[in-house]
Amino acid sequence: MSTTVGQVIRCKAAVAWEAGKPLVMEEVDVAPPQKMEVRLKILYTSLCHTDVYFWEAKGQNPVFPRILGHEAAGIVESVGEGVTELAPGDHVLPVFTGECKDCAHCKSEESNMCSLLRINTDRGVMINDGKSRFSINGNPIYHFVGTSTFSEYTVVHVGCVAKINPLAPLDKVCVLSCGISTGLGASLNVAKPTKGSSVAIFGLGAVGLAAAEGARIAGASRIIGVDLNASRFEQAKKFGVTEFVNPKDYSKPVQEVIAEMTDGGVDRSVECTGHIDAMISAFECVHDGWGVAVLVGVPHKEAVFKTHPMNFLNERTLKGTFFGNYKPRSDIPSVVEKYMNKELELEKFITHTLPFAEINKAFDLMLKGEGLRCIITMAD
Amino acid sequence: MSTTVGQVIRCKAAVAWEAGKPLVMEEVDVAPPQKMEVRLKILYTSLCHTDVYFWEAKGQNPVFPRILGHEAAGIVESVGEGVTELAPGDHVLPVFTGECKDCAHCKSEESNMCSLLRINTDRGVMINDGKSRFSINGNPIYHFVGTSTFSEYTVVHVGCVAKINPLAPLDKVCVLSCGISTGLGASLNVAKPTKGSSVAIFGLGAVGLAAAEGARIAGASRIIGVDLNASRFEQAKKFGVTEFVNPKDYSKPVQEVIAEMTDGGVDRSVECTGHIDAMISAFECVHDGWGVAVLVGVPHKEAVFKTHPMNFLNERTLKGTFFGNYKPRSDIPSVVEKYMNKELELEKFITHTLPFAEINKAFDLMLKGEGLRCIITMAD
Repeated sequence: MSTTVGQVIRCKAAVAWEAGKPLVMEEVDVAPPQKMEVRLKILYTSLCHTDVYFWEAKGQNPVFPRILGHEAAGIVESVGEGVTELAPGDHVLPVFTGECKDCAHCKSEESNMCSLLRINTDRGVMINDGKSRFSINGNPIYHFVGTSTFSEYTVVHVGCVAKINPLAPLDKVCVLSCGISTGLGASLNVAKPTKGSSVAIFGLGAVGLAAAEGARIAGASRIIGVDLNASRFEQAKKFGVTEFVNPKDYSKPVQEVIAEMTDGGVDRSVECTGHIDAMISAFECVHDGWGVAVLVGVPHKEAVFKTHPMNFLNERTLKGTFFGNYKPRSDIPSVVEKYMNKELELEKFITHTLPFAEINKAFDLMLKGEGLRCIITMAD
Repeated sequence: MSTTVGQVIRCKAAVAWEAGKPLVMEEVDVAPPQKMEVRLKILYTSLCHTDVYFWEAKGQNPVFPRILGHEAAGIVESVGEGVTELAPGDHVLPVFTGECKDCAHCKSEESNMCSLLRINTDRGVMINDGKSRFSINGNPIYHFVGTSTFSEYTVVHVGCVAKINPLAPLDKVCVLSCGISTGLGASLNVAKPTKGSSVAIFGLGAVGLAAAEGARIAGASRIIGVDLNASRFEQAKKFGVTEFVNPKDYSKPVQEVIAEMTDGGVDRSVECTGHIDAMISAFECVHDGWGVAVLVGVPHKEAVFKTHPMNFLNERTLKGTFFGNYKPRSDIPSVVEKYMNKELELEKFITHTLPFAEINKAFDLMLKGEGLRCIITMAD
């Protein structure tokens, strides 16, 4: 690899030229990493709803042309000035949010919302110089959430890179760089169900199923899956979901249905859809006295959470989480270890694989709601 | 005392004959305690807003004639069948909510909302037989929240009685049977501020000042008092409040004022007014990443809590508490010990004392908003 250090690398990348149009495979130039940056060779990437959301750019600031992608695994190709924790050859997961280890959030045991490197979906450039490291014929192609993994090489701030066990299979653990960790951490780090407890999971997509996986690992004995799509129920059984509720099957609010099933409410709930009605139901379905509801799904900009305050006064707790409360550099390596020691199962999340050249098919699968995670292999 | 065991006791009680009318000092008959009940000789009682609220009975089910009162201290006169934990002569605090030690709430470490003995403001009778133990000429006078301490003798379910250190001065620790424990526990048991942290307290009445006292005991370094009445600020300094904000002094929402004062928000907040706008401000003024807001004040029946769900997603927590999350029998004796070992100061809450015959003056003081706690001495 030493031949490329300090040099521009020309490689393949899937470029989103405009909103909602198929990505175009291009030859892009990737500049060397600057101060506190690293250049990664991406080996595997997967597609997450957030990529599709910003590709569609409905109601978002459109930032194009752009290289999307943020769930991935790779190897450090070279490091910029000041980078001491990483070296070429290290196996890593890039993460869409960072950990500077110096701000009030990074110094707090409770927060992972780094002031310097917190997710910024509008920014298409590196923070060091406000410029992109990607270009075609000298014209910039913008970054996405600091990762841009739909490229054979990418440049990432060192604070957004988790160094992991080099024995971990990158084609599996790549899914830990966003959605699966988000759901898993929502259960393990925030909801914290106890052994034998009951948990309701709202939304049985990849994040919700990862939350169910977290509840299973924690030893919950009843895991109630809530989804408007009954076809998801069969698959959810593999993730420890023991019962299913389709709100469409009832004339009363789903929180009342769940309260009746559980003698007053579940011990914990995790909301993974981002729909405001589901958020309210997820809160109101937890038991008074000790129930904790955790919001994971990202709401619409105009959404308003409404409930009667007595629902709080009766000793219910409502919390939100971002990336499962994991600090990317400090905590994600231990999640990889959970997979390595077979506590956490990842294979069941991976329903499709595609070569990089067919990345647009991964978008089609997600738009159709088929499967959970599609792994895209960068090498031919 | 043995002469009264098993006998009806005739004694003085202040009877509320109808809503909003001055209490009338009457001779009432107090029946002996039945199964799982105890009869208490009340030595000191104090007045709490809740007494005034149900005396006014605005928008409540009127239950009259009734003996109000629920903050008090006394001595066990006799015990009913099945009572093994208490004996005549024990020093006790009656509590408006109970602990049966047998239901799911009592068995949970997290809840104090006993299924059997949870506060019931509509019930004016004992749960054993659905009847009152108070009468005048054979006509029932109803109970209030299971305590009815505006009487020289009262009958209480054993689950609503905390046995305390017999050396504790009852004219001081009587205030721990409701409001002071509620505010103190909201800070110590629920908000749990850490040493050196910042805490905002909404409402500087007795409960809010008790929450401030809890924050002071926990070692908070900034305690920001929020109240619409600036005359409360001077007094609040005695309770550890270090800074004051009167929302009337600003054109922007108080949560923005507090965020500016604290570089993004306080670490903890405790809401003690029950006003919905204050509840929303108390939640939105805590720091993202780690802030915890605790609701204590009881809201209006039609109140709706509204906020943008991103305020949760950014890792804020909202919890409610009831009686400071203290279990009456298991935990209140230890709060008395906090006073005995001088960790907790109670004298500063006691601003007035009156003989029982002048109990209506205590109502006048509370209606005028004068003072914090008025101790009523039952003995002449």
